[in-house]
Amino acid sequence: MRHLIFFLISFLSINAQAQDAKTIRTIYDLALTQSEAYENLRVLCKDIGHRLSGSKGADSAVVWGQRVLGKLELDTIFLQEITVPHWERGRKEKAYFYNEKGKNMLDVCALGGSISTGMNQFIKGDVLEVKSLDEVNNLPDSLVKGKIIFYNRPMDPKKISTFSAYGSCVDQRYSGAIEAAKKGAIAVIVRSMNVRQDDFPHTGSMAYEEGVDSIPAFAISTNGANYLSENVTKYDNLELNLKSFCKSYPDKISHNVIGEIKGSEFPDEYITVGGHLDSWDMGEGAHDDGAGVVQSIEVLHLLNLMNIKPKHSIRVVLFMNEENGNRGGKHYAERAAAKNEKHLMALESDRGGFSPRGFSVNGTEKQLNGIKKWGDLFEPFGIHEFKMGFAGVDINPLEDGKICLIGLSPDSQRYFDHHHSDNDVFEEVNKRELVLGAASMTSLIYLIDKYWTIDN
Amino acid sequence: MRHLIFFLISFLSINAQAQDAKTIRTIYDLALTQSEAYENLRVLCKDIGHRLSGSKGADSAVVWGQRVLGKLELDTIFLQEITVPHWERGRKEKAYFYNEKGKNMLDVCALGGSISTGMNQFIKGDVLEVKSLDEVNNLPDSLVKGKIIFYNRPMDPKKISTFSAYGSCVDQRYSGAIEAAKKGAIAVIVRSMNVRQDDFPHTGSMAYEEGVDSIPAFAISTNGANYLSENVTKYDNLELNLKSFCKSYPDKISHNVIGEIKGSEFPDEYITVGGHLDSWDMGEGAHDDGAGVVQSIEVLHLLNLMNIKPKHSIRVVLFMNEENGNRGGKHYAERAAAKNEKHLMALESDRGGFSPRGFSVNGTEKQLNGIKKWGDLFEPFGIHEFKMGFAGVDINPLEDGKICLIGLSPDSQRYFDHHHSDNDVFEEVNKRELVLGAASMTSLIYLIDKYWTIDN
Repeated sequence: MRHLIFFLISFLSINAQAQDAKTIRTIYDLALTQSEAYENLRVLCKDIGHRLSGSKGADSAVVWGQRVLGKLELDTIFLQEITVPHWERGRKEKAYFYNEKGKNMLDVCALGGSISTGMNQFIKGDVLEVKSLDEVNNLPDSLVKGKIIFYNRPMDPKKISTFSAYGSCVDQRYSGAIEAAKKGAIAVIVRSMNVRQDDFPHTGSMAYEEGVDSIPAFAISTNGANYLSENVTKYDNLELNLKSFCKSYPDKISHNVIGEIKGSEFPDEYITVGGHLDSWDMGEGAHDDGAGVVQSIEVLHLLNLMNIKPKHSIRVVLFMNEENGNRGGKHYAERAAAKNEKHLMALESDRGGFSPRGFSVNGTEKQLNGIKKWGDLFEPFGIHEFKMGFAGVDINPLEDGKICLIGLSPDSQRYFDHHHSDNDVFEEVNKRELVLGAASMTSLIYLIDKYWTIDN
Repeated sequence: MRHLIFFLISFLSINAQAQDAKTIRTIYDLALTQSEAYENLRVLCKDIGHRLSGSKGADSAVVWGQRVLGKLELDTIFLQEITVPHWERGRKEKAYFYNEKGKNMLDVCALGGSISTGMNQFIKGDVLEVKSLDEVNNLPDSLVKGKIIFYNRPMDPKKISTFSAYGSCVDQRYSGAIEAAKKGAIAVIVRSMNVRQDDFPHTGSMAYEEGVDSIPAFAISTNGANYLSENVTKYDNLELNLKSFCKSYPDKISHNVIGEIKGSEFPDEYITVGGHLDSWDMGEGAHDDGAGVVQSIEVLHLLNLMNIKPKHSIRVVLFMNEENGNRGGKHYAERAAAKNEKHLMALESDRGGFSPRGFSVNGTEKQLNGIKKWGDLFEPFGIHEFKMGFAGVDINPLEDGKICLIGLSPDSQRYFDHHHSDNDVFEEVNKRELVLGAASMTSLIYLIDKYWTIDN
């Protein structure tokens, strides 16, 4: 009898796995033939373009998001109102220095949130090149005072994950102006967060600190940084001229855009999938994070096409303001807590629309192992990485020690070629890579909805 | 005592694995910081450009190959003389048809080896669209006679490996003219081997058969194919006008370029690594196969940098004429057989310079398992696929039931966006993806040289 039961359980389990393999194969087939993600991305990038929080582009993106969700078979579509920062770059920045060859123009842009150099004025100062915040902290004030601090530590090319290289480098961009200002610097210019050598300056968020002077902050392209460094080495007291026109305005009203399919068995238990609708104000926010937005929408589109009625409620959330405040992500988590919503899992795609390789799991060992068990189901599709790690900025505020937070992990090699720059455009996204990501996300949500319970 | 021996063996084995992990980490570090592969590729693509067998570009590539190998610490550099086909495209092809909107130009190119449409003449004929060779075979001669056959079966987007999709589609391009001519067709136009929708026509090899009329053969871009198909459906007897200027000339002399490091223990046993130096006559042959060429050269450069003296002789072979004859690959194998050279392994890179994912092994189960055992050593670098499969056109003639043939398997999603078209240019290769491939190849060769014997 024990043998018979064992046999039956094995048989049913093998049968269920074969059924799941078939379902997942169909998800990928539909994604590769009937996905709307790529066309949605084209419209978001080409008809709207960049969409920094507080901009007209962001307003249009909210309207676009509602319209696209409106075409799906969902039970509810709603907005969550938030206030967001409103910063504008203004006219194109300028930077130059003179050497014996004449005037040398540099490719720069203001960092996001920076003050300008003043009413249509250049700031002038000698350049002091450093490699880290610590190096600035350890310099005597007299050396820093009146200077333009040039943070030039490159992203470490030896790190296989470019996100690791970014993580160990981005402190220069975020806190560089604070540390330099403490010592009396008049501006900072920071090597772009880009592993590649090229001419694109990459913007990104930076901070000021109360009680410390706010000074203008710029990014410079990697080629520009190398060129500036050569000249700083060659000439004593190289004087750099910097001009920017950016300005912060009062906060504006904006929104998270949310679509929901009500769960058939556990309508009060939620699975959230999302990306962020805002982008920086350069390029088109194609990889960051137009890709994640259209992939998340595609999850619900694919469930519709498959006629899958999930057991748990599934929400797609197009988060606002990831780039400079994460107010959308924080608000979503606050509302969920206030309404005592039970969240089983949240999945974010915010690492570009490249070939998917796996998932980064911020959860318990048990949750990670539960996902790893499905490795064979994902193997035919090149999904092989199931690792503990950070999941996503927007969903991170949901962390409560119980929910499983998951990030899609695409191949990271090209991500920082595009990130926060004029090079983040629709043409740089490959349709197949994009939709394979959407299919991977859908497959994972299908499995978690089917097999997991809130006490998982 | 038995326990002690077991303990010692375990200890030594764990120690060896730790040592190998360290060595492989160093190989990747050096590749990511000191590789010359990307700069070599720039010169090959930008200073030489495309290099079809028999062309001046191919001659220059042979000289370039010798010069680049000459900078490495090798024991021998030599050429193998072969004769190669010499076909020239001549002026840009033209294709158009009229509908009520007027004249419609189509993006086409002659297939490699095709005859021209005649002395500066257009061929005109009604278009008959088909989806397969079989469909043509089954049509009555009367329907085909005097027509232009339009092969329009797309690559199957559902196949995860685009090479599988290519394999199940390329018969139209290779044999389409033969089957159509047997039924009296006057020309063929074949949908480009490209999964993406774009305007690039993709050339590639095609064949004629003795006793069957040779008719001109063209490729048409995927967008063009869709447009032509719409019009064929809409209008009866749509007349297409085609013009090409291509011509075959007598064979020319060319060369495989070979560099060798003599083995310290087994100098008469060989490991071959290579890619092909020739390309089609469109674009710059960046992914196909400039990438494989510079990666193969980089293997020896990295061994030099590591000061590794291999036990077996290691040869880098820059094969000539993979694209339209494989005479370089065949000659290399013939010479190896004639000289009774023992080959342990041959590794080819000819699937583009994209993020490496693993290796495709054409060998015994024992050889494949031997490689799989090293999975943990490769895991930190995203190398996870170790599968039986085709290894490479150039090394395939070495197959003798004993040698292990291996192909580098990069991510395949974008390969056919570029393959054999004007879109296969240097700018479309990412430096990190390229050098990660070179590091993966070097690591595998390091392990095989260290652990394998000729009787493996």
